[in-house]
Amino acid sequence: MSDPARDKRLFTPGPLTTSDGVKQAMLRDLGSRDATFIELVRDVRRRLLALAGVSQDDGWEAVIVQGSGTFGLEAVVTSLLPAGSGLLVLQNGAYGKRMADLGRLHGLRTQVLALPEDAPFTGDEVAAALDADPGLAHVALVHCETTTGLMNDVEAVGRVVQERGRRLVLDSMSAFGAVPLDLRGAGVDVLVSSSNKCIEGVPGFSFVLARRALLEEAEGKARTLTLDLTAQWRGLEANGQFRFTPPTHVLLAFARALDELEAEGGQPARGDRYAENQRLLVEGMTGLGFRTYLDPAVQGPIITTFHEPDDPAFDFRRFYELLAERDCVIYPGKLSEAACFRIGSVGRLDADDVRALLAAVAEALDVLGVRLT
Amino acid sequence: MSDPARDKRLFTPGPLTTSDGVKQAMLRDLGSRDATFIELVRDVRRRLLALAGVSQDDGWEAVIVQGSGTFGLEAVVTSLLPAGSGLLVLQNGAYGKRMADLGRLHGLRTQVLALPEDAPFTGDEVAAALDADPGLAHVALVHCETTTGLMNDVEAVGRVVQERGRRLVLDSMSAFGAVPLDLRGAGVDVLVSSSNKCIEGVPGFSFVLARRALLEEAEGKARTLTLDLTAQWRGLEANGQFRFTPPTHVLLAFARALDELEAEGGQPARGDRYAENQRLLVEGMTGLGFRTYLDPAVQGPIITTFHEPDDPAFDFRRFYELLAERDCVIYPGKLSEAACFRIGSVGRLDADDVRALLAAVAEALDVLGVRLT
Repeated sequence: MSDPARDKRLFTPGPLTTSDGVKQAMLRDLGSRDATFIELVRDVRRRLLALAGVSQDDGWEAVIVQGSGTFGLEAVVTSLLPAGSGLLVLQNGAYGKRMADLGRLHGLRTQVLALPEDAPFTGDEVAAALDADPGLAHVALVHCETTTGLMNDVEAVGRVVQERGRRLVLDSMSAFGAVPLDLRGAGVDVLVSSSNKCIEGVPGFSFVLARRALLEEAEGKARTLTLDLTAQWRGLEANGQFRFTPPTHVLLAFARALDELEAEGGQPARGDRYAENQRLLVEGMTGLGFRTYLDPAVQGPIITTFHEPDDPAFDFRRFYELLAERDCVIYPGKLSEAACFRIGSVGRLDADDVRALLAAVAEALDVLGVRLT
Repeated sequence: MSDPARDKRLFTPGPLTTSDGVKQAMLRDLGSRDATFIELVRDVRRRLLALAGVSQDDGWEAVIVQGSGTFGLEAVVTSLLPAGSGLLVLQNGAYGKRMADLGRLHGLRTQVLALPEDAPFTGDEVAAALDADPGLAHVALVHCETTTGLMNDVEAVGRVVQERGRRLVLDSMSAFGAVPLDLRGAGVDVLVSSSNKCIEGVPGFSFVLARRALLEEAEGKARTLTLDLTAQWRGLEANGQFRFTPPTHVLLAFARALDELEAEGGQPARGDRYAENQRLLVEGMTGLGFRTYLDPAVQGPIITTFHEPDDPAFDFRRFYELLAERDCVIYPGKLSEAACFRIGSVGRLDADDVRALLAAVAEALDVLGVRLT
């Protein structure tokens, strides 16, 4: 049951394949008020800010919230975005749509600016929308749309938002840690990501990087107890403790994952490995006859969407199972229109793993009797 | 850094000391859509119901929610208790107070029936409150008040609530798995507990056991996205998947913890071990001259509150540190009135561990120069 050697390679958007060191860091029971644990949490928060090019001295704070990434997003909406205020959601995939759902559910005047799923936001369309409606106080953008793997242009959108005195909330779930980002330079006010993405920890918490002023403004205004970011931040600052039992083992794994990220060479090296994984993947898959969904110019290094082959012999479920039998896990598609599937290039995987996947894909096509050329 | 042999014994209300087997179960990376993982989640949900003496065939459901126990409580309030409806909170400690805070925050007409922190709810006082106000549709009770270690009489309260056609929400965070409970027999409609308490998993999720009818009634009415119990349940039933990334490693640990609970002899054996730990603890501590806060008749086997000694040489912070240096972690008090501290008797600890703690306490008193007799 627990032979790690037998685990499949996870070519998914998360949970990802993690290192043995990250998993072994969980072989401890720490009390949540233990000095070792409190110091670990403090250090994790400091390093998360550093990874985004900011620090507490610059007026930034890192707040950890139990749960998946969506818990972090809902914490931002219910803590930092007042009901009745205007929210412009830049939507070109399922995660933009989720942000709009959160805005509506929590009483924001939510306006959606939608682009097709293969088109990135680059700023101009945002400027027009903001100029037309001065009440849109907040703008929400997804950094890497996991729906497709598309990268939106954070810097360009951030400039437009900042120039107009609005605030930018960035869902950088799939990108943070692997894609270069300087929060201040990019005009981002709030960033949300999670433990089990590019930092290669295990799933269990999300984190929010925010300008301190926003947390202070939100004092006492949160619409939920558990997702109250300001109260969570105040607690962490006061005595280093979570308000409610933290996932201690997941945090131990995450601290180790940050060590390993530094040892690898930080964000640049991690980004390079993922980009090389993705390049090999596309080279191999197109060599087998698959077509990518996105234009290479907007494709990020995180996850790639491929069209399902036209050949009626192709059945995604069977294809998925044949790959799983070969210890490779891929992901179904999430597009509203095209029949497709997705392959991640992130987590503790390298060129050899991608080659193993490509060999498995070739075998699966063979078994299915699918011809692509 | 990761030598489990060096970890301290956690005499706390959680996170607790867990077995090596539970921690080692986390040395795997499973995809959240993996058939193995989906089967594991299904099995965990089935076993949680069985532990409460109910099953899906009887109309009960187990829903898992990411986050700590309080996330589960807020999920119940925001999903199953409509805004504007009446909630009677039976409060004799901090966790009853938290439930009242949740009720008020989420727009319930919240009425608090308070008893002193050393007095249990036994039914009669509840009958009077419910008869006086027919609009109190829901009653919230804490099973074991971790504030003190006091056990409320669930069966007696449940009978009163059931006879009057109201619904009982039980916060059994600290008790479930170690204290005998038959949900139907006790007249409970909803129970909330968490992964890192008496089942001895690691922290990372809460779970809600509820009559299916309540989940069905709540369809589409939840006030949050991530804490929507009905949507979470529908997702788990539809394809075995969580709506948002689950803490896969924490769930692997929990499945193993359930195995170990069964191997130990189930709830009766676990309850016996805790009761014996608690008996030895009180025997030893009173032998050293400490006084317990609660009357033995209302004291549960989970956690025990001791008065701080009157001797001015006693300083809790120093006492705590001296015990921690001896690899034993205890817990500060949480009483509104008396100066006290708490010692848990739960988790993977037995009589030898309690004896080690008692020896450490004797040494600490010696170092502090505290005289108790």
